[in-house]
Amino acid sequence: MKNEITIDKSVGIVHTQYYTFAEPPDEMILVSGKKLGPVTLAYETYGTLNEDKSNAVLILHALSGSAHAAGFHKENDPYPGWWDHYIGPGKAFDTTKYFVICSNVIGGCSGSTGPSSINPLTGKEYALDFPIVTIQDMVNAQSHLITYLGIEKLLAVAGGSMGGMQALQWSISYPQKVQSVIAIATAASLSAQGIAFHEVGRQAIMRDPNWNDGNYYHNTPPSNGLSLARMIGHITYLSEKLMHEKFGRRLQQADIFKFEFDLEFEVESYLHHKGNDFVQRFDANSYLYITKAIDYFDLKNDFGGDLANAFVHVTSDYLVISFSSDWLYPTSHSREIVRALRMNSKNVVFTEIQSDKGHDTFLLPNEQLEHNIANFLKREFEKVHKR
Amino acid sequence: MKNEITIDKSVGIVHTQYYTFAEPPDEMILVSGKKLGPVTLAYETYGTLNEDKSNAVLILHALSGSAHAAGFHKENDPYPGWWDHYIGPGKAFDTTKYFVICSNVIGGCSGSTGPSSINPLTGKEYALDFPIVTIQDMVNAQSHLITYLGIEKLLAVAGGSMGGMQALQWSISYPQKVQSVIAIATAASLSAQGIAFHEVGRQAIMRDPNWNDGNYYHNTPPSNGLSLARMIGHITYLSEKLMHEKFGRRLQQADIFKFEFDLEFEVESYLHHKGNDFVQRFDANSYLYITKAIDYFDLKNDFGGDLANAFVHVTSDYLVISFSSDWLYPTSHSREIVRALRMNSKNVVFTEIQSDKGHDTFLLPNEQLEHNIANFLKREFEKVHKR
Repeated sequence: MKNEITIDKSVGIVHTQYYTFAEPPDEMILVSGKKLGPVTLAYETYGTLNEDKSNAVLILHALSGSAHAAGFHKENDPYPGWWDHYIGPGKAFDTTKYFVICSNVIGGCSGSTGPSSINPLTGKEYALDFPIVTIQDMVNAQSHLITYLGIEKLLAVAGGSMGGMQALQWSISYPQKVQSVIAIATAASLSAQGIAFHEVGRQAIMRDPNWNDGNYYHNTPPSNGLSLARMIGHITYLSEKLMHEKFGRRLQQADIFKFEFDLEFEVESYLHHKGNDFVQRFDANSYLYITKAIDYFDLKNDFGGDLANAFVHVTSDYLVISFSSDWLYPTSHSREIVRALRMNSKNVVFTEIQSDKGHDTFLLPNEQLEHNIANFLKREFEKVHKR
Repeated sequence: MKNEITIDKSVGIVHTQYYTFAEPPDEMILVSGKKLGPVTLAYETYGTLNEDKSNAVLILHALSGSAHAAGFHKENDPYPGWWDHYIGPGKAFDTTKYFVICSNVIGGCSGSTGPSSINPLTGKEYALDFPIVTIQDMVNAQSHLITYLGIEKLLAVAGGSMGGMQALQWSISYPQKVQSVIAIATAASLSAQGIAFHEVGRQAIMRDPNWNDGNYYHNTPPSNGLSLARMIGHITYLSEKLMHEKFGRRLQQADIFKFEFDLEFEVESYLHHKGNDFVQRFDANSYLYITKAIDYFDLKNDFGGDLANAFVHVTSDYLVISFSSDWLYPTSHSREIVRALRMNSKNVVFTEIQSDKGHDTFLLPNEQLEHNIANFLKREFEKVHKR
């Protein structure tokens, strides 16, 4: 008999693993037509794969995420993985029931092959010689990992934001391998406004003199530009209401204005802090590649201008979730996905969760999000096992 | 008898004028306690001041505006003044009836004293030695101009965005001089989100190595940073819907992706174009000073934390207008002003105009905006003349 209170709800200490494939001459052929290989994917797993390998859930991360979705890398780590609220014993992705895999994306900088990796042809970092990758390429790379892990069909692929794009793409690229999709705060394509914010972020990086056409790996990196890009991003991840509640117009120190160009409002120092943190852990070139992959993602365009066509051959069930205050990936974009799925008579559960916390809600504790994921997964597991 | 079709609806060729005051030792004392003088204001006037000087309307501009609100500076000018849709014979601010004045702000770079002006103490550009100015300082400077023009009471003060802030401040600082206020797409204070966008723009400028702590007047200016700031601004001036309708995800040239970090989407080239245009006509330091003035504006804070207190002594009538898709100065902020005025039993007309065009609606042709302004002004004029 479980005692809810004494359950340790963390997966504990975890280690990132690496899988390398597509060794020349068997490189991956990318959507652009270019080749990439060898390819390494960083990934982590939590829980145990069951005997019939029917309990595997693949978690996909957003722009700045990594394979480290849950637990801690070492004792006294200040922070757990990025989705620790949702992955662990008794949590939404219950690691006592499911085998949870989180795979980093190609193009990234957290252990997978990306622009900061060594180009085997030159012995130097790829930098801008790294080919442009798409969400489809990211998913194709992950399919190698899933095959390597011996999994024929994933119980679920799940992610928020760019992770949701990958989840949708998985069900389209590999319809036989995906029992269900959990697509959170995402879209079948990014809005013009979203592309605009990305482009300003990319320009901030590319206009930093330290960027040096991407060749900065042995010099000072373009931290000014990258932190600016992150500051812009952060504004779009929060809602106006949350910013108002969290910071309002409060000043950092005194009650009176300094009459200087200095950090003064709390919201200013918050953004600076976020920007400065980010440059410690993220590669500016990866920021360019990953935002570009998001901008390029367009399921409607891929299927002749009709989103419904994208889902003709899918066989998955879908859980689509949006957040009421998310203005970067607004509910209307989720509804568009839901409509296209329903036009194909697919099994879809859609929920708009009321939240003031904007796009970032998917990363924060949210009971409704927990319950929606947990219940959906439970039903899908039961369906597979025909209880 | 007028023929509507043959009426020339332009004020024609106009000239910017300049008024200099606050010559030492009679400098302006700024809100910060610092002194500024001499002070020059650039201004333009359209129409004729009537005999009893009761038909003067003061127009106040937004962040990047100037004194040139209507007409053309020379034959074959490609563009008229920034509010030419609304100022001219038969237009909302009907120059056959009203004497329209548009005053540039201090801190700017379009003829008025600002950071790019010569500091009389050093004989060099002020650069960052220019004192921080507030909306209140801008209004105090304008009051010198209005006195100089021999006008005791303005029929109306009108503006959008930062212009609306000045209009509100006019009625508070000089209650006896303002018959009415037209405050469009504005707020009693900028939101935390708005401050955040401003700060990212300022950082883009200040992190441009050409900025050189503001001392670039004899070298290459920080155009990279300033155009980035403008690109960010432009995203906030438009609505997501407008961006979707105007650009969507259309590509600039081909139907297929380039797979390069190049301008590709139409929305990207639009922003680059806007950014590049802006650096031709605007001073980066002025961008810092003016955004800071907007961030500092806070009528609630100025009056002990209760916005209603700000309007206790005002005697003006108010027309407050917001636009449904404006997310930078949302309708809720206008309603806050209206509520505070009504708590003081002031005469307020409030309209939220349905528009998809975001904050920038106030600069674009809009029939409802025209009618609202024209009718309000007419009633105010009749009220003064007790018809």
